[in-house]
Amino acid sequence: MHVGPVTIDYDVLIEGMKGDVGFTSKEFVDAFQYSLKSLRKIMGAQENSQPFIIPGGGTSAMESVTSLLRKDDKILVISNGVFGDRWEKILSRYPVHVKTIRAKPGDYVTPDDIEKEVSKEHYNMVTMTHVETSTGIREPIYEVSKKIRNYVDLIVVDGVSSVSAEEVKMDNIDVFLTASQKAIGTPPGAGLLVLSENAVSRLSDNSIAGYYLNLKNWIDVMKSMEEGRAAYFSTLPVHLILMITKAFKLIEKEGIENRIRRHEKVAAAIRTGIEGMGLSIVAKHPEAYSNTVTGVIVNKVNPSEVLKEIVNEGIELAPGVHPDLAGKYFRIGHMGWVNENDAISTIAALERVLSRLGEPIRLGEGVRSTQLYLSKGNISNL
Amino acid sequence: MHVGPVTIDYDVLIEGMKGDVGFTSKEFVDAFQYSLKSLRKIMGAQENSQPFIIPGGGTSAMESVTSLLRKDDKILVISNGVFGDRWEKILSRYPVHVKTIRAKPGDYVTPDDIEKEVSKEHYNMVTMTHVETSTGIREPIYEVSKKIRNYVDLIVVDGVSSVSAEEVKMDNIDVFLTASQKAIGTPPGAGLLVLSENAVSRLSDNSIAGYYLNLKNWIDVMKSMEEGRAAYFSTLPVHLILMITKAFKLIEKEGIENRIRRHEKVAAAIRTGIEGMGLSIVAKHPEAYSNTVTGVIVNKVNPSEVLKEIVNEGIELAPGVHPDLAGKYFRIGHMGWVNENDAISTIAALERVLSRLGEPIRLGEGVRSTQLYLSKGNISNL
Amino acid sequence: MHVGPVTIDYDVLIEGMKGDVGFTSKEFVDAFQYSLKSLRKIMGAQENSQPFIIPGGGTSAMESVTSLLRKDDKILVISNGVFGDRWEKILSRYPVHVKTIRAKPGDYVTPDDIEKEVSKEHYNMVTMTHVETSTGIREPIYEVSKKIRNYVDLIVVDGVSSVSAEEVKMDNIDVFLTASQKAIGTPPGAGLLVLSENAVSRLSDNSIAGYYLNLKNWIDVMKSMEEGRAAYFSTLPVHLILMITKAFKLIEKEGIENRIRRHEKVAAAIRTGIEGMGLSIVAKHPEAYSNTVTGVIVNKVNPSEVLKEIVNEGIELAPGVHPDLAGKYFRIGHMGWVNENDAISTIAALERVLSRLGEPIRLGEGVRSTQLYLSKGNISNL
Amino acid sequence: MHVGPVTIDYDVLIEGMKGDVGFTSKEFVDAFQYSLKSLRKIMGAQENSQPFIIPGGGTSAMESVTSLLRKDDKILVISNGVFGDRWEKILSRYPVHVKTIRAKPGDYVTPDDIEKEVSKEHYNMVTMTHVETSTGIREPIYEVSKKIRNYVDLIVVDGVSSVSAEEVKMDNIDVFLTASQKAIGTPPGAGLLVLSENAVSRLSDNSIAGYYLNLKNWIDVMKSMEEGRAAYFSTLPVHLILMITKAFKLIEKEGIENRIRRHEKVAAAIRTGIEGMGLSIVAKHPEAYSNTVTGVIVNKVNPSEVLKEIVNEGIELAPGVHPDLAGKYFRIGHMGWVNENDAISTIAALERVLSRLGEPIRLGEGVRSTQLYLSKGNISNL
Repeated sequence: MHVGPVTIDYDVLIEGMKGDVGFTSKEFVDAFQYSLKSLRKIMGAQENSQPFIIPGGGTSAMESVTSLLRKDDKILVISNGVFGDRWEKILSRYPVHVKTIRAKPGDYVTPDDIEKEVSKEHYNMVTMTHVETSTGIREPIYEVSKKIRNYVDLIVVDGVSSVSAEEVKMDNIDVFLTASQKAIGTPPGAGLLVLSENAVSRLSDNSIAGYYLNLKNWIDVMKSMEEGRAAYFSTLPVHLILMITKAFKLIEKEGIENRIRRHEKVAAAIRTGIEGMGLSIVAKHPEAYSNTVTGVIVNKVNPSEVLKEIVNEGIELAPGVHPDLAGKYFRIGHMGWVNENDAISTIAALERVLSRLGEPIRLGEGVRSTQLYLSKGNISNL
Repeated sequence: MHVGPVTIDYDVLIEGMKGDVGFTSKEFVDAFQYSLKSLRKIMGAQENSQPFIIPGGGTSAMESVTSLLRKDDKILVISNGVFGDRWEKILSRYPVHVKTIRAKPGDYVTPDDIEKEVSKEHYNMVTMTHVETSTGIREPIYEVSKKIRNYVDLIVVDGVSSVSAEEVKMDNIDVFLTASQKAIGTPPGAGLLVLSENAVSRLSDNSIAGYYLNLKNWIDVMKSMEEGRAAYFSTLPVHLILMITKAFKLIEKEGIENRIRRHEKVAAAIRTGIEGMGLSIVAKHPEAYSNTVTGVIVNKVNPSEVLKEIVNEGIELAPGVHPDLAGKYFRIGHMGWVNENDAISTIAALERVLSRLGEPIRLGEGVRSTQLYLSKGNISNL
Repeated sequence: MHVGPVTIDYDVLIEGMKGDVGFTSKEFVDAFQYSLKSLRKIMGAQENSQPFIIPGGGTSAMESVTSLLRKDDKILVISNGVFGDRWEKILSRYPVHVKTIRAKPGDYVTPDDIEKEVSKEHYNMVTMTHVETSTGIREPIYEVSKKIRNYVDLIVVDGVSSVSAEEVKMDNIDVFLTASQKAIGTPPGAGLLVLSENAVSRLSDNSIAGYYLNLKNWIDVMKSMEEGRAAYFSTLPVHLILMITKAFKLIEKEGIENRIRRHEKVAAAIRTGIEGMGLSIVAKHPEAYSNTVTGVIVNKVNPSEVLKEIVNEGIELAPGVHPDLAGKYFRIGHMGWVNENDAISTIAALERVLSRLGEPIRLGEGVRSTQLYLSKGNISNL
Repeated sequence: MHVGPVTIDYDVLIEGMKGDVGFTSKEFVDAFQYSLKSLRKIMGAQENSQPFIIPGGGTSAMESVTSLLRKDDKILVISNGVFGDRWEKILSRYPVHVKTIRAKPGDYVTPDDIEKEVSKEHYNMVTMTHVETSTGIREPIYEVSKKIRNYVDLIVVDGVSSVSAEEVKMDNIDVFLTASQKAIGTPPGAGLLVLSENAVSRLSDNSIAGYYLNLKNWIDVMKSMEEGRAAYFSTLPVHLILMITKAFKLIEKEGIENRIRRHEKVAAAIRTGIEGMGLSIVAKHPEAYSNTVTGVIVNKVNPSEVLKEIVNEGIELAPGVHPDLAGKYFRIGHMGWVNENDAISTIAALERVLSRLGEPIRLGEGVRSTQLYLSKGNISNL
């Protein structure tokens, strides 16, 4: 129950057990083709959009949007926490102008505040974080995008903790990106992103981007591979891409709608359990609850003690990393192949550990609440 | 017998079969610590040097030397082929001045020519390619380094096709880099490099580097991991690093000296077979023969036909990619876990295929030459 | 949560990933040596006892005791269900005299009844089933053995569903046997047994046994392998033995005492949950509850419907196979690497499924009881 | 290049990487169904024949023919070596009458000698060994079967070292058996056999067979599984059967005819090399050369020294185990996924080792002969 890297299915890992597969082999090209087409579907993108799977991770995928920027461009960064702030850190290395709007801890930057800013000044790019991994807060990206579409050139969304677990679609969005080690459920090592037709048209030799993370250098490889022909710019993570292909097949088998609903249900079951035992959640507003990460505030015990103890119960949670809430919370990740059994046993283990450590909770009530929630069988009944 | 990605031992692949290992787990931190220390040894570097293992590959490792450069720095690129030229392409994306000296096909840039250039003008950095993968030509990097050490600030060597197969030491060299999918024998997905103390001292916030490939951002993670404490900048390719650790253990078990000698012997056995059947080699000068890649010139047949046919004999070779020699040669890779059996069966299969396709060769003489070479048992007897 | 084959740890499965390991290789001989020594310890046997790991499974291990019998020997079979009856079926193929004492469903044959029988007539062998897999009933084998030791030549225990999960020791017992796919947690394919010194002394060329299952033919292989020297009678399941070795290492790491206590705790937590939701257990007498299998009686629903439905909750249970209780119960297996999270999520899923199917249970009370039981943390507190 | 267990393809091993597959799961039942149908085809058997895959190996499969015998039956054993003699050892444990005809070392029992014996006396069963693993001698089983069909009730062939590498068909043959660890290329742990309609009709409760190896107990499981319904007699080696299924798919992909031809070509290439270097073969008559095992006679060196040395060349051979030829020969196994590269590198390594140890051979001539043989490309040209 970590926020990532998540638990990986062995059927996915096994797919990478190849001693001799090269980047020009039919096996690999077929797999890559499938993965690129799947990625477009999972991102809810249009046929004329361009998917990319490149070595690296979430941060390198974020930095690759420099391929769309030119010297002196203006970028508005919307930040609800640590990974929102990362956009600012990346872009500060380049000759562009960055302004950041920051939410208070537990809050999110509202669509209205964003609209207000973009209506005052022209921005070439706005970046948002769909689910802020550091706190579990979800930004209403579709509402924002609709409001600001006509003001800005490019809308970029970091979907590292959302893709394949939250509703994802590229209406009004130009770049949606994620990383292999999150809800997709593969090992770390790749960034995955899709560019809208609008974004593709802005790729240029005159961008501020470097060489390796320059999507202009990768686009022909992606196009060629999607058409079933091997191509080379720099060596691809062949084995990881075979695993991503398998993960995408498992996602297709489950159905992306079912998958999102499963995440939604597990997330709600966990929150119900947390509240049932008497604790509260970092995200202040229910509309900002995410399907993938829940921050839990503790009152008496040290959250790092909780993490240490619960490992002995066979469950791994993640520390709270938002500097303003340091020492006050921990995070439960619920993405990838999590299910109802994980929800119930996480809540049960958490109750036992918290109770043992002296946090005042209602022992047995958390697990009972989660069970009653789950026994309704269907989220719409709630 | 490809030039990379090479065949991977299943014991290495198996090491990555972990469903649940996180980047803060003791298992991973121990593995990373071991890998960093091993890398320093394999590179023949001093204790005060700094090893890095970062997501990406050879190209990203090359680009990461921008962390050592400032605006308007002058760089001299020594190019014996496609991957030498890549330095120029990378650096042209940055605000620095680049001059390239290029060898003619089959030749290498001589130490004297390089010395002449650096004595004329001050360069902040000189880059060389130890073994040029596109042709199999080895640059005499140690002789060059000795000659130019006092003229230049930083000497950088691309050892992508040499590390763990050729003699590697960091005397007079500031950055030595490689990639995971070459002679080390792991899947693609990581760049590995070591910086000398001199190089480390030039890391600065004012470099021209971006964010993800900026070694300044990674150095604290590397230091902390080597000391056995988890640290985070951006998610590491956890599974791949576990595999690299295993590969380094296998290399240590073999002994780096033995490993280099094995590559040397297999390479010589293959060249003996090639000449025995009556063909010639791309590298014109014996001192530039490499332990890892041999370019073979054919006279009558189409090299791409050879590659297609020999796959049916269970052996994969690589195309010739140097533009000036297009259609005239193919490449044999002999790196990783290649041995004498691979040498003999590659030469035998090549003879059968070439003979079938109509290339005029001495059938049976190549394999007999290789066998006689090998039966002397010891390279020093030749 | 099946009664076997149980869920297997991937670290165990990975151990069998060897393309080239032969039965004379040092790697294999070392592993086999370790396994034989471990088996002796896990069985609580003395140094002069003889461990065997032979191809097959529980049934072949049972049949191999014919190696200790001669024509016209008398055997008393103690049967609490299907697998007790199996002794009778096996022995009926041989020229010996068999008498069977059978318990009523839910009961076990008492030590007094057994003593009464053996005191009336001399038996060469008595066979018992430690935990009867078909019902989950545990026979008090140590009490029986003590009582009958002086009456009979050989006491044989089928520990297929007990070894490494219940207390196992060979005091007063001559043969203790199990199979690889049960609580040890490896794939099916081997029978494992230990013979006391007394039993070994009865191995003879004049036994009624055939050839392949004749322990006389295997004993020299076992002795030689335990001494570190390869030996051959018939090909051993090399890969499976490597996996058994790993499983034994994991068991040693956990500690056999801890392992038994873990099974005891999980079993008790599950029974508490079953009773908490208002259902009853097949075994009538608490002293016959086992650590590994629990039969659950349902009143209204069809048990095969429960099994079918609960698979959709990600949990697999086993059908009730005792002919006298057909259609009235199902079985929960709790052996191998089961833990507290499995207990709570099995009870929770069972509640949801039973409630959905219309069985009258107290929804939420089973899971709460299990949680309260577990939160006491320590079985001795109960 | 061992005579078994042979090298196993990792794609086969990977198929067994399942943590949770039960013997009633659809995945397993489908796989078993496929394997049984494939086995029938690979054995060249008729539709009304009955395939069996049972735990154990070659010896247990041999012993299972007791299911077809009754007290006082007469069996004629045809023995060309150690594994022919094994039939006698097995059957001597049962109340039947056995007569053995033995060939001299290097020879085989001729069809005429067998016909002479069966025409003198009625035998219920004749057993033959298709390829005698201890010497590499092939019995002309089809000629024998034709000659003796009308004299005897049952003709049984041990195809342990022939099935999937020699021509196998069940015309005039009642039982054809093999083991998983030989030319099929899976780990040891199962015996595989097919019974003709005639053989099936002789299965009876009154056979001399015991319980576990009694095909009467297994036949309903085999029938049910082939029809796609799970059935239980005793736990099957689930993981191994998944691997056998994969191996059968690879065999089907190659084509059984191509596979036999490949074995034939590699065997001939190896024999050509052996003779080219000046050594001779155990089998005296070319018509008794086998596709799978070649015994090589050495004149001066100790064969066990050869085996020890050649391991350092990365090649494993097998010792000579025929007691009459002890210390005079070693064996090369060439079954499973062996190819032309294995042939050439085995001959080359053998030359180097023998030459080093002082055996008088023509160095370079063996490998040249093998290469010239292979370069003819097609066995029919020879």
